[in-house]
This record gives sequence, structure tokens and C-alpha cells, in this order.
Amino acid sequence: MSFVAEPVARAIEEFNKLPGIGPKSAQRLTYHLLRSSDEEAKALTEAILALKEKIRLCSVCFNITDRDPCLICQDKERDHSKICVVEKPSDILPLERTERYRGVYHVLHGSISPAQGIGAEKLKVKELLSRCQDGSVAEVIVATNPNVEGETTAMYIRRAIQPLGIRVSRLARGLPFGAELEYADDVTLGQALDQRQQF
Amino acid sequence: MSFVAEPVARAIEEFNKLPGIGPKSAQRLTYHLLRSSDEEAKALTEAILALKEKIRLCSVCFNITDRDPCLICQDKERDHSKICVVEKPSDILPLERTERYRGVYHVLHGSISPAQGIGAEKLKVKELLSRCQDGSVAEVIVATNPNVEGETTAMYIRRAIQPLGIRVSRLARGLPFGAELEYADDVTLGQALDQRQQF
Repeated sequence: MSFVAEPVARAIEEFNKLPGIGPKSAQRLTYHLLRSSDEEAKALTEAILALKEKIRLCSVCFNITDRDPCLICQDKERDHSKICVVEKPSDILPLERTERYRGVYHVLHGSISPAQGIGAEKLKVKELLSRCQDGSVAEVIVATNPNVEGETTAMYIRRAIQPLGIRVSRLARGLPFGAELEYADDVTLGQALDQRQQF
Repeated sequence: MSFVAEPVARAIEEFNKLPGIGPKSAQRLTYHLLRSSDEEAKALTEAILALKEKIRLCSVCFNITDRDPCLICQDKERDHSKICVVEKPSDILPLERTERYRGVYHVLHGSISPAQGIGAEKLKVKELLSRCQDGSVAEVIVATNPNVEGETTAMYIRRAIQPLGIRVSRLARGLPFGAELEYADDVTLGQALDQRQQF
């Protein structure tokens, strides 16, 4: 709408690009920021920029972190003989929220998808295998998404790791097929962790 | 959650402060930005900062603008003898979307609320009256919200402007499009009856 000041139109447009933000929400956010203090707007933009500037991947588990190794890998209270394998960094949050898991993680950064031409070599699978070589790992819990790509990835990891004499388990199928780990509710995910099955 | 890298936690927290953004949305937005390019994140933060830096109030109508007078007040195609009075800058957008109004606006920046100690002197009422002094204004359309504060404000403006020989009107009350009589509230239905139109 041409009567809207250009910076207002641009802010609405930028917010509208974000996932889950429709035109009305984008408009509401923009007018909210116009009303709020310069400090509030600055806190938001600085938080976004810090996200891009300070965040890198942990050299051990490939989780996103602002220090290396990440807080989880540095944590001596955790059981480093258990590695939970996830597809994305954001999959760690719901698992931690269950408070049922005190091992460490490994982030694959994707899943095997022949349809999209993504093989194991494009994921952090090689790095997972090398973590499993020194004899310190007793169990690998595969927590890939319960969909075709996630299952394919789980199978691949099981075949690669079982020969090393390491127990490989996966989350119980309490999760409905087609769901996304990132948005699973805490109870379902907690049960899935408790009932993980050797396979 | 202490295991989350500080910049990630901070971004989630900042997004969570925005209206309509709950903890899950804040988390989704944060991880979306982590995955997106530096350019995308920069475009968003620059749009937010430009909003705070470049936007001021039009010295004529007090709408938000990046130039003074604003695009609406500068528009010679518009009917400057009609002024539509709204509470907030964001109230102009829905009115423009109707494409039924080609006059200009005046933004009060609030409404009279004795309960909150907001009198006419805290709003841009004085400025509205001075726009009405030079004889160029034929009609003032009061488009304040249909609630107690909006009504009080409308009454105040009518009393102040009618003596100047200017027509003062307000938005019609009645049933909204698509409403069902059976579920209409008493006040709305009463107003729809009072203001019934011959057809």
C-alpha cells in the first residue's frame, strides 16, 4: 500500500518472511516496535545479530554453541558414554525439557534423503563414527525424526555402529508417524525416551 | 535452560517479548534465523532499526511517516476538506483498505480515559482544532473505537468542532457483515435498530 511510509512497509515485509508470521502479525509487530522504546528495538536487533555472529558449531557434537566445546560436551556431570543422535540443533531442546536424558548429543545436520540427493557423506555421520572409535561409548540412541528420511538415517547409523560392539537404540514409537521432533510435546517425548528399544 | 548457548537463549527471550509471539514461536523464529543467511538476518535487523530511526510523526496529521508532511497529506488527489480522526496510526490501514475514503486523516495518539488519567490535553486534539480553524475543512469523521474511551473521545471532539460550523460524523454502528442475529450482543443490536436505514 503506497501510502504507508517505506520503512514501515519494509519492516512488515521482513517480518512477513519469517515462519508463522502472516501479514496481520507482521503489521502488529511493526506497529508494536514503533510504539516501543529505542532500547527495546535495539535489544531485539542485537540479539538477532549476536545469533549470527557468535554462534558456531561445537567441534565435538556439532550442536550450535557460542563456545567450543559446547556447554553439554563440557559438562562433567553428564554421562559421556551415551550419545543421542539428532537431526537438528533445535531437536535437543525438547529432549532436554523431558529431563530424562543425561548423556551427550550428536547433531547430524540433516537426514539421509535419496530423493533430495542427500547421502550420509553430507551429514556429520563420519564424525559420529570417529567419536565411537575410542571405546568410551556404550550406547548410541538414535533420535532422528519418525519419518522416511529419519528411519533411513537410523538404519544407516545402526549398520555402521553395531559392528563396533556399541548398543544402538532408538526412541520408542510413541511418536506418531509424520510428526516433527521439534514440536513434540514433553510427555510423549519423555515416554519415547524411557521406552527406547535396542534394534 | 542453561545448556542453550547464551545468544540463542537471548534471541528466544527477545522474540518472546513481542505481542503474539509465545515461547514456541520465539524458538522457531530463532532457529529459523540460525539456519538463514547472514543477509536475511541483516535485512530484518536493518528494517527494524530504520523503523526507529527514520520514522517520525507528520506535522500535519501526526500519522507515522518517513517524510514531512506524510504521503497522504501531500497527496493533491485527496479531498483535504474531509478529516477522518483515528486513535492510532495503525487504524489508518483498515480504513484505506476499504477504498471508500479519499479524504485525509488526523491521529490522536490515544483516547480520553478518565480512569487512566488521560485527558484531551494528552492527545493531538488541540492540533486537530487548529486544522479546523482556516475554513477549509467541511467534515470531520470521527473513527475512534466503539468502546467507552472511544465514545468519550468522540463526544469531546463533537462538542469542540460543531461550534465551528463543521459537519461532524462518526462511523455507523450496526451488525457486522456475516453476523448472526441470534448471537448478536444487546448493545450492537440496539444500535443497529436505532440507526436502521430506509431502503
